[in-house]
Amino acid sequence: MLGFLPTVNPTNHKIAAPFIETPSDSSSIMSVLQHNHIAASLSSSTSSFFAQNGFDALRPQIVSVPQKKAGICKCVATSPAEQTAYKTKVSRNGNIAKLQAGYLFPEIGRRKAAHMLKYPDAQVISLGIGDTTEPIPDVITKAMAKRALGLSTVEGYSGYGAEQGEKELRARLASTFYANLGIEEDDIFVSDGAKSDISRLQVLFGSNVTMAVQDPSYPVTKFNIMHSLTLNYKNAYVDSSVIMGQTGEYQKDVEKFGKIEYMKCTPENDFFPDLSKVSRTDIIFFCSPNNPTGSAASREQLIQLVKFAKENGSIIVYDSAYAMYVSGNTPKSIFEIPGAKEVAIETASFSKYAGFTGVRLGWTVVPKELKYSDGFPVAKDFNRIVCTGFNGASNIAQSGGLTCLSPEGLAAMREVVGFYKENTQIIVDTFTSLGFKVYGGKDAPYVWVHFPGQSSWDVFSEILEKTHVVTTPGSGFGPAGEGFVRVSAFGHRNNVLEACRRFKELYK
Amino acid sequence: MLGFLPTVNPTNHKIAAPFIETPSDSSSIMSVLQHNHIAASLSSSTSSFFAQNGFDALRPQIVSVPQKKAGICKCVATSPAEQTAYKTKVSRNGNIAKLQAGYLFPEIGRRKAAHMLKYPDAQVISLGIGDTTEPIPDVITKAMAKRALGLSTVEGYSGYGAEQGEKELRARLASTFYANLGIEEDDIFVSDGAKSDISRLQVLFGSNVTMAVQDPSYPVTKFNIMHSLTLNYKNAYVDSSVIMGQTGEYQKDVEKFGKIEYMKCTPENDFFPDLSKVSRTDIIFFCSPNNPTGSAASREQLIQLVKFAKENGSIIVYDSAYAMYVSGNTPKSIFEIPGAKEVAIETASFSKYAGFTGVRLGWTVVPKELKYSDGFPVAKDFNRIVCTGFNGASNIAQSGGLTCLSPEGLAAMREVVGFYKENTQIIVDTFTSLGFKVYGGKDAPYVWVHFPGQSSWDVFSEILEKTHVVTTPGSGFGPAGEGFVRVSAFGHRNNVLEACRRFKELYK
Repeated sequence: MLGFLPTVNPTNHKIAAPFIETPSDSSSIMSVLQHNHIAASLSSSTSSFFAQNGFDALRPQIVSVPQKKAGICKCVATSPAEQTAYKTKVSRNGNIAKLQAGYLFPEIGRRKAAHMLKYPDAQVISLGIGDTTEPIPDVITKAMAKRALGLSTVEGYSGYGAEQGEKELRARLASTFYANLGIEEDDIFVSDGAKSDISRLQVLFGSNVTMAVQDPSYPVTKFNIMHSLTLNYKNAYVDSSVIMGQTGEYQKDVEKFGKIEYMKCTPENDFFPDLSKVSRTDIIFFCSPNNPTGSAASREQLIQLVKFAKENGSIIVYDSAYAMYVSGNTPKSIFEIPGAKEVAIETASFSKYAGFTGVRLGWTVVPKELKYSDGFPVAKDFNRIVCTGFNGASNIAQSGGLTCLSPEGLAAMREVVGFYKENTQIIVDTFTSLGFKVYGGKDAPYVWVHFPGQSSWDVFSEILEKTHVVTTPGSGFGPAGEGFVRVSAFGHRNNVLEACRRFKELYK
Repeated sequence: MLGFLPTVNPTNHKIAAPFIETPSDSSSIMSVLQHNHIAASLSSSTSSFFAQNGFDALRPQIVSVPQKKAGICKCVATSPAEQTAYKTKVSRNGNIAKLQAGYLFPEIGRRKAAHMLKYPDAQVISLGIGDTTEPIPDVITKAMAKRALGLSTVEGYSGYGAEQGEKELRARLASTFYANLGIEEDDIFVSDGAKSDISRLQVLFGSNVTMAVQDPSYPVTKFNIMHSLTLNYKNAYVDSSVIMGQTGEYQKDVEKFGKIEYMKCTPENDFFPDLSKVSRTDIIFFCSPNNPTGSAASREQLIQLVKFAKENGSIIVYDSAYAMYVSGNTPKSIFEIPGAKEVAIETASFSKYAGFTGVRLGWTVVPKELKYSDGFPVAKDFNRIVCTGFNGASNIAQSGGLTCLSPEGLAAMREVVGFYKENTQIIVDTFTSLGFKVYGGKDAPYVWVHFPGQSSWDVFSEILEKTHVVTTPGSGFGPAGEGFVRVSAFGHRNNVLEACRRFKELYK
């Protein structure tokens, strides 16, 4: 009786017909068959559940509801959206309408698919996506499994947690990453990842701020070949800014939005913007180590950045998602720079340390010393935003995070990071040995290979065509990325080695 | 060498001093002691991790950084915020400044704490909070544990998932809850819970819409006694609307924000607004079964609501977080109403069915038939918002959700819901037998007890004083809640029974 949908019998369709208000509801037999398949997989105990909860009780009622359109399935697939005439009187949010359609990763996906059709037997290797590939260390997953199972016990059960994260995790984050930097437990807001927090920060700032962003910058949306629905792309900081109404219109000729300050980062300026040429903005988004260039700003550069922010009264949003990849004396946190607590927010994540891209756990530091022009602490308003629009990260993920920060967990994360850094070194060595000028790769799992004077897309295409390896054309990250290709070090070792063997073959 | 902070030795403080830019960095010995305790719990292998990753390498560097303020700890605790003179030039977001300080749950917490001081031996029972208390059925936690452990294997590992949720879960949600209602897999966006999605919906709508909300309505922030940081309160729909700039200023005299349409729900109108008196708005937030009143709108009422929306060209945001508590013929989804797909969004959650308040998993349905005034599908823009500011719910939580929708999972959820419904019945029977007029309780785990002519806070205080039971004063949910007290049915059975025994003692 979960019923409906035995598709072969038109009578059944007629019973359900009152719910078919437009032809769109049964636009193709395929979708009906899919539904039916799923419905059929629910057993009789499901049916009794629905009966008991009254889902079935509404069936007789259906017949008495006025019928707008009855009939059997339309067999021709049509776009349902086009079929519905009714429109609400609610105006579309004009800011969202400004967004540009994504193209980079969808286009890569399209070209990859075409390539696989052309070479069905080729072993295609993807070094294009910034998605982790190594399993999560089992000391961490065991802790998550234990927490999950504990939720079935009276002692282990917990309901709503604090929106800001579990106290123990916040304290451990403070002591692990900011031990003597003056950042305290209550400055740290645990989140479900940096992308969510960047969006919440934009809601915090509102529509009346101006912002600066590095060019190139990382895209908002990874393209997951498995989920072709993910069709959006553009810069994460920029898109969230556009949505909040902080920007002007998109200017096609320069590939930029109005009212945003794009800070060019190229080999000429050591991937650090010439601040003497940067206009003052309220907010400065700064990602270091950088995706896609792989560059990490030096201590001296960050001292300059903090000084610049302080002189301008700006707020830096420092994205440090790759901090654990940093080697040597290069800062891992903006708060290593004196005075940064008065001008900076830092957002970070477990994604690239522990393989938590799917588990979802990150954090944002908003020091209590950071103030608006009227002296009001930014952290108080951010706390309000977090409490209003978020209910805390999953408690199971938080248990994983806490274990990440145990001695065993830290050692395990170090191993994961070390593994990807070895991958990076293999890629750097390969391109260097072939005579290419290579950037990044030292403090980040991204290698930024220079092909001076060439089009990024042409290089991408040649590599794909001749080596069956997917990379990412640099121009997709912004105009300043033209002439570069990003090679990601996320991948299984044998794939990285094989890809490098093919690169050597191609460019020998 | 993770070091710093052996507080007894001033020399150590001097080493760290360059990071103490203001007295706030070491504002009290207590906080230093806390840090030290945590730092000490990290073993030597942690130190070697930091050494290898370069965290230690920066220590010698510290000395060379210009020192702004050196010295030992300030031992008097001061408010750090007050001590910092520097302000950025960024203006505070004026919309956030409009928000009113929370009072309901903090005030309840304060009164409860005072009560416990006064009666240290009293067994205080809380039926005040809407937080689940029963363990999660183990068929569900076992699935989550399995997924977690699988993430440590090459076959079981998965990185980024689709922002919209895993395909199988979306399909199962469609077939389970919307089997013949014309809602398809791609109309469903899996989320980390309804609160996050309400906030994302507000970002979707932007600042130029008007909105209506039921009075009373549920508060944005549960008060968790364990986390006293959670100090914010006000209506969830209203606060997110204020933040986006959709409203006017707060009007103290009427306890309402300007430009919001408050739809009064009282026994006189069967807790359904008199739509002939409701002004047209772009958005209508409607929670049914309702928190706090416990009322579920009937089919006839929802037909009226959809008709009203259609005539006005409004969009209904239907919050159905308690749908599984509904009995009989009352609709469980707005999409049971013909035509609703053209005017409604529905947001839902696993929280109150499977005890997922801490696990975080919900979903929002945006039918492709729903269009803005220019004919653009709302779902396309919502997809963009989700892709820009969210990276999907935790994959472990999604495995739990999928198991919730298996035959065993559905049976287990039915049992959880059934248990809380029994609690509800016990509370309803108790107050009814004492001669009170009781509302709600049939289709929701909340009982709305009428104390005509009395102040909600007075009743709350008397109940606490004389029975040691914490309830929630109805006026805290909005002006129309005055004269009511909400009794939550979430709680262990023995606590509910004991509370009811005490109610009978008090009101006999």
